[in-house]
Amino acid sequence: MHKSRLEAFSDGVLAIVITIMVLEMKVPHGQEWANLKELLPVFSSYVLSFLYVGIYWGNHHNLLHVAKKINAYIMLANLHLLFWLTLIPFTTAWMGENSFGPNTVALYAGNLTCAGIAYFILQKSIEKTLESNHKFRVALRHHSVKGIISQVAYALAIPLAYVEPVVSGLIFLVTALMWIIPDRKIEKVLDL
Amino acid sequence: MHKSRLEAFSDGVLAIVITIMVLEMKVPHGQEWANLKELLPVFSSYVLSFLYVGIYWGNHHNLLHVAKKINAYIMLANLHLLFWLTLIPFTTAWMGENSFGPNTVALYAGNLTCAGIAYFILQKSIEKTLESNHKFRVALRHHSVKGIISQVAYALAIPLAYVEPVVSGLIFLVTALMWIIPDRKIEKVLDL
Amino acid sequence: MHKSRLEAFSDGVLAIVITIMVLEMKVPHGQEWANLKELLPVFSSYVLSFLYVGIYWGNHHNLLHVAKKINAYIMLANLHLLFWLTLIPFTTAWMGENSFGPNTVALYAGNLTCAGIAYFILQKSIEKTLESNHKFRVALRHHSVKGIISQVAYALAIPLAYVEPVVSGLIFLVTALMWIIPDRKIEKVLDL
Amino acid sequence: MHKSRLEAFSDGVLAIVITIMVLEMKVPHGQEWANLKELLPVFSSYVLSFLYVGIYWGNHHNLLHVAKKINAYIMLANLHLLFWLTLIPFTTAWMGENSFGPNTVALYAGNLTCAGIAYFILQKSIEKTLESNHKFRVALRHHSVKGIISQVAYALAIPLAYVEPVVSGLIFLVTALMWIIPDRKIEKVLDL
Repeated sequence: MHKSRLEAFSDGVLAIVITIMVLEMKVPHGQEWANLKELLPVFSSYVLSFLYVGIYWGNHHNLLHVAKKINAYIMLANLHLLFWLTLIPFTTAWMGENSFGPNTVALYAGNLTCAGIAYFILQKSIEKTLESNHKFRVALRHHSVKGIISQVAYALAIPLAYVEPVVSGLIFLVTALMWIIPDRKIEKVLDL
Repeated sequence: MHKSRLEAFSDGVLAIVITIMVLEMKVPHGQEWANLKELLPVFSSYVLSFLYVGIYWGNHHNLLHVAKKINAYIMLANLHLLFWLTLIPFTTAWMGENSFGPNTVALYAGNLTCAGIAYFILQKSIEKTLESNHKFRVALRHHSVKGIISQVAYALAIPLAYVEPVVSGLIFLVTALMWIIPDRKIEKVLDL
Repeated sequence: MHKSRLEAFSDGVLAIVITIMVLEMKVPHGQEWANLKELLPVFSSYVLSFLYVGIYWGNHHNLLHVAKKINAYIMLANLHLLFWLTLIPFTTAWMGENSFGPNTVALYAGNLTCAGIAYFILQKSIEKTLESNHKFRVALRHHSVKGIISQVAYALAIPLAYVEPVVSGLIFLVTALMWIIPDRKIEKVLDL
Repeated sequence: MHKSRLEAFSDGVLAIVITIMVLEMKVPHGQEWANLKELLPVFSSYVLSFLYVGIYWGNHHNLLHVAKKINAYIMLANLHLLFWLTLIPFTTAWMGENSFGPNTVALYAGNLTCAGIAYFILQKSIEKTLESNHKFRVALRHHSVKGIISQVAYALAIPLAYVEPVVSGLIFLVTALMWIIPDRKIEKVLDL
């Protein structure tokens, strides 16, 4: 009951975040392919962020599935996570419109970093409501390794953006793909 | 449980996609009927895309209804479908603002093609979780025929747009209407 | 099950329609009260449409509550209703930005008329699934009277807009208020 | 049943309100940090409003949780609350774009005041459906004290904005934080 509204609200916010990003792809005035080509950086940043928000939705879905009860701390931690995710359309658009310029990549990486930390806090606040030997807690260790790798990747993407922005973009992409590959261990526990 | 959140998220995304398209109909500055008439191509493209997104919602609804369990592949396939559908407001606006110019019709047809393929992949990934002689699998064969006709129609609309854009628009419309006519076979199976 | 997704999708669309209208209230550049005063027509049209969409949501909620099963015709009738409701942000903005100019009032009245007809069709398609002496069918007769009064009011608002637009605005307001007053008969049947 | 749709619609509206505010943070044209710095007032107003809408969602969630039945008055009171909340993106943007100018702060405070009153009316209309000695009614007294403090704070923020806008901003922030601290008494009653 409690859980279902937290999920509904989060689903709503994530669905809107993922969809309004497309509004940043301003329709070009001409009808030539060349007009469309100029949108390539904006489109690339859209694809990246679509992947990230989609992954967050999937992980959020699995995480909440395990939660037994929703207390006020979990509600706050969830709101905190949503805050950073609602900023993604902005940082995505800044990065896209400036063709992955160094500062914009740094801000995007910072946004992903904050969202990652917020997710970790949410995970911890949910774990606290589970017994210490709960099978999901064990499975989540694997999850946490992915989280650490991601944070390192975001940190690397910042200096590299000042050398070659494309490399930073690829780092974001590879990190996203690492999350997309289904996590067998967690799936087994969740009985997906 | 799992299924309900996948549906809620998809419903959210589709509801937003169908609604933000109307934001592309920029309110004209004058208050004469002539000012409104200029919006006719944009309005036509809105009607078309409203139909398509509405149809996708209906089919998605029927498809998910049958799904017994949601695994990671179905979640990915669903996200993949949503990706192409979130691009519809953009391709619709480009086509509308350029009065169904050839390139813009080609892109729109391409978008519908990709969405169609993504839907097919989702259908297959759900079918895999059903027994081979499941009555829904049998009913879906009819569905697949419609899918193939649609893909052919989209492919035809591209070259025809370079001859007469209105014809391509009509092809999109007729294809949409083909889907809107309720599918008795599937309905019977779903006991609608 | 079927019903819940139809409701969720409709709730999503109506929630977005009601909320994106506020995006049409462009933030004025100055910070004087005078800057705000210029927005008065836009704000008035927002209030009107908020009322109408809110009423539609409430009535839709009651109507779907009674529906026993959702067939393909109900799904189409529902989509048809949503189509006219998604146009409300556009017609609202055109009317607001042109200070309730005659043509814009006529279009707004036309939009409400189409939505009213679409609602009537949805009601009929749901009634068909109920037994002929169902208590809700009896209660709906009262509802239908309100519907006819509304259609007459919209029809009156059009010529009056060419005489005095404020009168048309008041007609819209009074019609909305007529719907807002809770309908005891229907409530009793629905056991609200 | 009734309740779930009221919640779903409200969740939808609140999710959209919280998310479209980010659209007001117009992506700057340059890619320097200085370009971003100009957005600081807009960003601050976004953070404030995110907190407020998030808090309203949480309180709304708790309030509706207790409601036994939803009558027409509760539906109207809920719609009335949503009306004031949908205006928040507008008042937030006006305040942010004018760097917390006095008039804009006054309007924002007015918006929060109206939302607060609307929430109070909703609370009362739900309380009426509960028995007079219901434990939740007792717990809500504490809640009402917070409500009164907030109204005083909003009233103070208006004159202070004409002296020093930053102080008003801080008052808004402190008031929000007062609500964010979990309310043990209500939690116990709700068994969170």
